[in-house]
Amino acid sequence: MNSIIPVKAFGTSAPDADLEQIQIDRRTITPNDVEIEILYCGVCHSDLHTARNDWGGTKYPSVPGHEIVGRVTSVGSQVNKFKSGDLVGVGCIVDSCKTCSSCAQDLEQYCLNGFTGTYNGADTHLGGHTFGGYSEKVVVRDEFVLRIPENLDAAAAAPLLCAGITTWSPLRYWNVKEGSKVAVVGLGGLGHMAIKLAKGLGASVTLFSRTPGKMEDAKALGTDEIIISTDSAQMKSVQGKFDLIIDTVPYVHDVNPYVSTLNINGTLVLVGYLGPLEPMLHTVPMILGRKSVAGSVIGGIAETQEMLDFCGKNNIVSDIEMINMQDINAAYERMLKSDVKYRFVIDMQSLKN
Amino acid sequence: MNSIIPVKAFGTSAPDADLEQIQIDRRTITPNDVEIEILYCGVCHSDLHTARNDWGGTKYPSVPGHEIVGRVTSVGSQVNKFKSGDLVGVGCIVDSCKTCSSCAQDLEQYCLNGFTGTYNGADTHLGGHTFGGYSEKVVVRDEFVLRIPENLDAAAAAPLLCAGITTWSPLRYWNVKEGSKVAVVGLGGLGHMAIKLAKGLGASVTLFSRTPGKMEDAKALGTDEIIISTDSAQMKSVQGKFDLIIDTVPYVHDVNPYVSTLNINGTLVLVGYLGPLEPMLHTVPMILGRKSVAGSVIGGIAETQEMLDFCGKNNIVSDIEMINMQDINAAYERMLKSDVKYRFVIDMQSLKN
Ligand SMILES: [Zn+2]
Ligand SMILES: [Zn+2]
Ligand SMILES: [Zn+2]
Ligand SMILES: [Zn+2]
Repeated sequence: MNSIIPVKAFGTSAPDADLEQIQIDRRTITPNDVEIEILYCGVCHSDLHTARNDWGGTKYPSVPGHEIVGRVTSVGSQVNKFKSGDLVGVGCIVDSCKTCSSCAQDLEQYCLNGFTGTYNGADTHLGGHTFGGYSEKVVVRDEFVLRIPENLDAAAAAPLLCAGITTWSPLRYWNVKEGSKVAVVGLGGLGHMAIKLAKGLGASVTLFSRTPGKMEDAKALGTDEIIISTDSAQMKSVQGKFDLIIDTVPYVHDVNPYVSTLNINGTLVLVGYLGPLEPMLHTVPMILGRKSVAGSVIGGIAETQEMLDFCGKNNIVSDIEMINMQDINAAYERMLKSDVKYRFVIDMQSLKN
Repeated sequence: MNSIIPVKAFGTSAPDADLEQIQIDRRTITPNDVEIEILYCGVCHSDLHTARNDWGGTKYPSVPGHEIVGRVTSVGSQVNKFKSGDLVGVGCIVDSCKTCSSCAQDLEQYCLNGFTGTYNGADTHLGGHTFGGYSEKVVVRDEFVLRIPENLDAAAAAPLLCAGITTWSPLRYWNVKEGSKVAVVGLGGLGHMAIKLAKGLGASVTLFSRTPGKMEDAKALGTDEIIISTDSAQMKSVQGKFDLIIDTVPYVHDVNPYVSTLNINGTLVLVGYLGPLEPMLHTVPMILGRKSVAGSVIGGIAETQEMLDFCGKNNIVSDIEMINMQDINAAYERMLKSDVKYRFVIDMQSLKN
């Protein structure tokens, strides 16, 4: 029988209800646990989709949040990697089987037995489901806790835990390096991190945008080139150019024009859109150029630490807009209109007030 | 002004006309040319599609054939790689720019300036278009001539030049080796070579088949397992199994059930079907397993030689049915019914009669 500690959180009890303050239980630490006081939590589109049951399967009450940065307040007797006061992070994964072939390769995100999501996952300790970072504290198995470089702005580092690793993982898996030609489709939370991280790795970076309005913002983020995807002359100018395209667009869209801009052996990797590819993907450009269309989801724990260390060394964080916990419902409405540059981060101090 | 030699060939003058004996011109050898007396020519589906203008763009008279095996009869003054009497092959490519980034990487099949097809390509020497292997002789730039291992049956080696390299190239590019798990979709000319070559590389090989009728044939080719793709229990038994799937099916078909049988990081590579993917490709299994759908076409010259040498060492050839040149129209009809195990090869001696 686990003992529990009650903590304040922000959650929702139904798809159409606003988020409001509730009380949830956290387990008291077991020998392998780390207890964390949450300082900041980034706001991911998945939070909104889960709160509103857009994908089905949401368990209520739902407490979202998987871009968590905080300070360790206590550690279990077996934990020697962390100590009280450490600045740490928790991303999308708080547990996995650690025995399957994916976990054995540090690919917990592809755990064959299913990883435990930071929220809406099965809570193997207390029963019921896991609660995310919109709360005062979280208790997490030590192997799933990340170290946040102390030189980074802690609030702006929070989105690295989901938006950062989601774009870092494909950049690394498809071997982006000095001189690589990378394109990014979509300039939101994911897209702006993809630009910063690809630039950090030494790639030249092109942003595909539907409208010219984002030109200045994209340049400020380090983009080398902006191609208006509705301008056929501009699209023609980049035919066969890119080694890797990171497509962050979360809704259905035609990927065929982007496939044509891949170089021989190039890959377009989808990280945003879950669903059937419509209009239909055409095989001819793929066959005649050995091009691939692939998918990728978040990243493994070791890879996330690698990304955080890289960001520490290169001073890379997210562009954020800080909000209070009580502003979350309004923030969701703004996110639906893409009205944020580029990530809301909740100052969790506000939950104490 | 090039001088020419007239040679007998089999060709067609219109999409709906039978192939018949005609006379074509070959150039006399230039310093870098190899003149080859053709002994055998495999019959590829592309031959039929080109003869009948199924893809548009066929230039008439059309003389197909790009699985050519023959003996060198004469070489140009600059040629030192080949001499009269050598057993050689010519595949789908007889020239390329040799200067673009693809050619610089021995990827002539992806030449950015377009490779010269063995037939229906632009003939830069005589003008007009190139004529394929359904003929007595062919004259080819030495860098595009392959060496056929003398221990192989020369007729059965002919299909290696297209069906062989088309399946070898993806097996090598996606790093199939001892212990890899490979699946093949479709048991025709390409599929049966994919099985033999993957087995040769040490992979375990599964054949996906729509009907149980091919069981014995597939086993005889070395297949370790046959999965009836219409049997949901069988399909379920191979979920998440394969590192690489070579999909040789030449008509539109649903690839989604095959994507589900890929392992984490697995790739389904299309080598047969040119067109839109219908039903639509679903991104969820790709994203949640970092899976790729890719395309690949034939292979480069160095890679083709590597494959031929590998086949020489491992005694791998195609299963063939030998025909006379005069039987070609009937053979096309049988190919349309998939009534061949697994490749027709023309005994070019018959053209002399
Ligand atoms: Zn997220
Ligand atoms: Zn696992
Ligand atoms: Zn062919
Ligand atoms: Zn070239």
